[in-house]
Amino acid sequence: MKLKTENFLVHESTKVDLKKSPTLIKAFYKSKEDYEDALKEGVKELSDLQELLYASNKYAVLLIFQAMDAAGKDGVIRHVLSGINPQGCQVFSFKHPAATELEHDFLWRTTCVLPERGQIGVFNRSYYEEVLIVRVHPEILQGQGLPDSVLGEETVWKEHYRSITDLENHLHRNGTKIIKFFLHLSKDEQKKRFLDRIDKPNKNWKFSLADLEERKYWKQYMHAYESCLSATSTKHAPWYIVPADDKKMPVSSSQIFF
Amino acid sequence: MKLKTENFLVHESTKVDLKKSPTLIKAFYKSKEDYEDALKEGVKELSDLQELLYASNKYAVLLIFQAMDAAGKDGVIRHVLSGINPQGCQVFSFKHPAATELEHDFLWRTTCVLPERGQIGVFNRSYYEEVLIVRVHPEILQGQGLPDSVLGEETVWKEHYRSITDLENHLHRNGTKIIKFFLHLSKDEQKKRFLDRIDKPNKNWKFSLADLEERKYWKQYMHAYESCLSATSTKHAPWYIVPADDKKMPVSSSQIFF
Repeated sequence: MKLKTENFLVHESTKVDLKKSPTLIKAFYKSKEDYEDALKEGVKELSDLQELLYASNKYAVLLIFQAMDAAGKDGVIRHVLSGINPQGCQVFSFKHPAATELEHDFLWRTTCVLPERGQIGVFNRSYYEEVLIVRVHPEILQGQGLPDSVLGEETVWKEHYRSITDLENHLHRNGTKIIKFFLHLSKDEQKKRFLDRIDKPNKNWKFSLADLEERKYWKQYMHAYESCLSATSTKHAPWYIVPADDKKMPVSSSQIFF
Repeated sequence: MKLKTENFLVHESTKVDLKKSPTLIKAFYKSKEDYEDALKEGVKELSDLQELLYASNKYAVLLIFQAMDAAGKDGVIRHVLSGINPQGCQVFSFKHPAATELEHDFLWRTTCVLPERGQIGVFNRSYYEEVLIVRVHPEILQGQGLPDSVLGEETVWKEHYRSITDLENHLHRNGTKIIKFFLHLSKDEQKKRFLDRIDKPNKNWKFSLADLEERKYWKQYMHAYESCLSATSTKHAPWYIVPADDKKMPVSSSQIFF
């Protein structure tokens, strides 16, 4: 059974209410084996299509993953993209920006590593952090050394949305296909996964006390995501809200990508 | 006497007719010495202001120079910016794009070297080449390996203008002041300078037969410049049309920059 990806698409100019988007849906697989077969099949298809993309060398594909902690971004990338020839696929993770990066506008560091034609580029977090974590913690904006004209105005988020959609429209016009995934996790499921990270020694490295601190801002994050998804899902760079409480169902990728 | 820089500004949404813009104006200096004093004074002022820019580390300045061959871009940069602390000023010249650069969209290679906050960045040629030389020789566009959707459509130039103004608006919002100079040379004066380059051994290196070839497309270039200046001169990233037949009068920089 194939999922209808359309169900998870955020249509342009719709107001997103995350409470109405499920974090868990009825499984589309019957058993673990069934799921693994479907994943294998999907990865194979994706791998074949990637070879075509690489050979034709006309278009680039940019996949953006955003989510709350422990929603499974790393897992999706590992499981779905591990079958791809790494020569045609580059993953970049964006954590705290370095000093040089902060000396430039907020789109600069990601622009420098955009995928070349023929390549799939994957952003694990992205320039969207600037309208998510920075919106939840506006004091970060204050610390970025920006000119006064940028600071303290409520319009800054709208202007950032505009900068983002302008950039994405430009990339689309010039041959980059952009698809964006929000892995939608429930607060309860995050708790379970945090406890798991604390309990299991091999998962300890993934947990930090800062994660618990951020969890306190859950509501503010959901608000920032709703505003961001509503403003930046466009025909040529759509967002998909992917139910993420069941790790086995992250996304049927090849259906969406091509 | 100070020049009124306003006279050379291209106001937003005006249709530029280069035949109506002078390539030579009445000298604002009385003698060579008078000119040199004025230049020295201007460079000093610019240098002081650059130190403030560097110290405050809030804004960046981007200066873009475009012109026909032999109009004096290199000379302006050498004479006006030589007094500046090079730690706060970086010049990039854009010639034929390298293979890696052609694998990205046309704004990529210049974006990666945009000035950091506190810096003056100078582009000797720029992303504008894509709507100038490429417009005069659209076969270059064909050879860039772009997807078919981009090619062969007359709208491509309008889309490029839009990509450019979107980027420049974004940079403005995020603290980069952009000023653009078109050095306006007459066809006759170019001929004189080419002959000079052929005659004088120390100027030979600047001349190539390809320059003569491009000269044949003068009219098409003027058309491309008119269209480009009309479409991309905005309040926050204005173009100045600088009369360039008299090399001593390239531009009274500090008046314009700050």
